[in-house]
Amino acid sequence: MGDMPRIWNETIEAHRDAVREATINATAALVAKHGLTGVTMSQIAKDTGIGRATLYKYFPDVESILTAWHDRQIDRHLQELHRVRDRSAVGLPRLEAVLTAYAQALFEWRTHDSDVSDTLHRGEHVAAAHQRLREFIRELITDIAATGAIRQDVPADELTVYCLYALTAATSLHDPAAVHRLVQTTLSGIRLTGTRATDPQ
Amino acid sequence: MGDMPRIWNETIEAHRDAVREATINATAALVAKHGLTGVTMSQIAKDTGIGRATLYKYFPDVESILTAWHDRQIDRHLQELHRVRDRSAVGLPRLEAVLTAYAQALFEWRTHDSDVSDTLHRGEHVAAAHQRLREFIRELITDIAATGAIRQDVPADELTVYCLYALTAATSLHDPAAVHRLVQTTLSGIRLTGTRATDPQ
Repeated sequence: MGDMPRIWNETIEAHRDAVREATINATAALVAKHGLTGVTMSQIAKDTGIGRATLYKYFPDVESILTAWHDRQIDRHLQELHRVRDRSAVGLPRLEAVLTAYAQALFEWRTHDSDVSDTLHRGEHVAAAHQRLREFIRELITDIAATGAIRQDVPADELTVYCLYALTAATSLHDPAAVHRLVQTTLSGIRLTGTRATDPQ
Repeated sequence: MGDMPRIWNETIEAHRDAVREATINATAALVAKHGLTGVTMSQIAKDTGIGRATLYKYFPDVESILTAWHDRQIDRHLQELHRVRDRSAVGLPRLEAVLTAYAQALFEWRTHDSDVSDTLHRGEHVAAAHQRLREFIRELITDIAATGAIRQDVPADELTVYCLYALTAATSLHDPAAVHRLVQTTLSGIRLTGTRATDPQ
């Protein structure tokens, strides 16, 4: 008896997830085809086969769907970075693998529609995602700092901010080899050996 | 005889410059006091004592004045970076001095009204200023590369992009000592000794 509501709730939840997924997918496809301004709630309802009244119960407007889409993409990117971390050797190779994956994602993202980016990269959900990314990278750097492989004269949080900003240069680069060089250059900034040899003060 | 028009033209030009300067200064003062949305052409005319009709001959709207103001600030920053370059010792100390001045300017700029920044940091005049900054830094890096003090495995243009993005982290920092550490970290990324010691490939 006690199981009935749980199963029912799970069914409802799965249904809701499916509606949300279908809506986000249809919207992403419409944006890819017609650009940001060519997307309406009516067309999304039509493409998904979801009634307009139902659609509005899930999302009040197109922008909220785009925000959900962007959230999902950020989530997937963060999950991918976690996977990269978990399959790399502990220490500097792990940091190098994660930073490489992040720089490559920025590099691939650079050619996306800049109108869409400008619209989506504002707002609180992006600030929260950046915060999660920053905490993820800081944790990696702190772990490696404990092994003595990176410079000790700069706090882990500052090294994290440095890494994230430096790697954003990937959005200005034109080929994958340059992205690789950017990661190497950025890593040289935080490695202990680099510091010892180059900071005479 | 031939001198008359030239003197007259110079007088007109000086007058125009004075009107432009007065307008920009009054607008900057109004923005500081009332924020971006609290500034009108009428108030600027009133504060400068310039007639409204005359003011509109110089600037079509408030935004164009703000753009001119921003241009002037960028020009002054670039001139300051040139002065810093010219009074520093040739080689790495020169690059360090210029990058420090740039990072400090970004650090001081971070607390400015973000509405104003968002409005002004779009548009072609900013892209052109970034281009000038990039060429200026690349020239410095190219000069030092010739002395063998920095890594040779990454093209000067890529090192320039790396430096400019990495130093933008200054906008996320909270004290001048952290800005100093950021510059040192960034420089470690491009120094030859750092590279040699840390890049085993």
